[in-house]
Amino acid sequence: MQYPNKIKKEQTKTINYSNRGMDLENLINESNEYYVSKDVALIYKKPTPIGISEAVYTDRGRIIKNGYFKAPSTLDYNGIYKGKYIEFEAKETQQKTSFPLANFHEHQLKYMQKVLEHGGICFVILKMNGIVYLIKGSDLIDFIAQNNRKSIPYAFIKEYGFIIKEQYSPALDYLKLVDEIYLKG
Amino acid sequence: MQYPNKIKKEQTKTINYSNRGMDLENLINESNEYYVSKDVALIYKKPTPIGISEAVYTDRGRIIKNGYFKAPSTLDYNGIYKGKYIEFEAKETQQKTSFPLANFHEHQLKYMQKVLEHGGICFVILKMNGIVYLIKGSDLIDFIAQNNRKSIPYAFIKEYGFIIKEQYSPALDYLKLVDEIYLKG
Repeated sequence: MQYPNKIKKEQTKTINYSNRGMDLENLINESNEYYVSKDVALIYKKPTPIGISEAVYTDRGRIIKNGYFKAPSTLDYNGIYKGKYIEFEAKETQQKTSFPLANFHEHQLKYMQKVLEHGGICFVILKMNGIVYLIKGSDLIDFIAQNNRKSIPYAFIKEYGFIIKEQYSPALDYLKLVDEIYLKG
Repeated sequence: MQYPNKIKKEQTKTINYSNRGMDLENLINESNEYYVSKDVALIYKKPTPIGISEAVYTDRGRIIKNGYFKAPSTLDYNGIYKGKYIEFEAKETQQKTSFPLANFHEHQLKYMQKVLEHGGICFVILKMNGIVYLIKGSDLIDFIAQNNRKSIPYAFIKEYGFIIKEQYSPALDYLKLVDEIYLKG
């Protein structure tokens, strides 16, 4: 092992598991901060689960000297909106024709089904071909159940996805779509 | 900096912010696993937020070489039960006559109020004098608003707290109390 790959930076925000979807994550985090500041909703990104192999106690508290990232089994974001439980995952892909399901961790799709069964609102925010889509968890689960595929064709995403337009503030007003899709009437 | 304080252990579960309340935390985690396994609820402890000062890329992925624990501004646990959003904090104290409010981080009490305003169920599970209590967030907030105190007297906890009996499985059946307190009728 050599050191050219070593990076050093002060990072004040919560770390991202994979570094994929970084831009989308920032847009969503910014939107969530907006929602919290306006008392619209309380939705937060869950911190990435960390395993610790080595820690030291210092006069400034306990410090991690060797830690690793663990795969999450739930989704990235959860919270409450209009009294409803919301949980969703954010994904970004550079693929143009299909979205590989390998982007989800093993338990995440089963977990999505469970959130729906417990009465939660559950979806995926997917950025693909420069467009941000909200895809209902139920549509995603149905697609996977009915198609033995390793990826979701872009045609499906265009047909079933709801477009979230990027704007000034909040950057991605996905709760407006949640109103229309889940809370109408 | 010397090395006698160095500890080395493989830790597979999510780390605890302060090491206070470790036993209570295990009881709650076990209960939550029971609830998930029986499809009763989806409630998880949020991973502790970590800041990273230094990370390296290895053939096994990105590894943290210098990380620190950040103070959480939300509560320890959240999830969904019977379609309702639930969020709570777990605390354990060795104090016998009063529970010091310094056990909460700065934003947590304000956050508790916000969860209630958004229609969530919010409470504290407190272990004190060997007894586990569920204290409604609204009772806690009212007490703090009406009393200019740095701690909550045990008399208040005995009067307003609902006792959660420790048992075999789930170890702490706090959702039974949630039914009685919040979801009756």
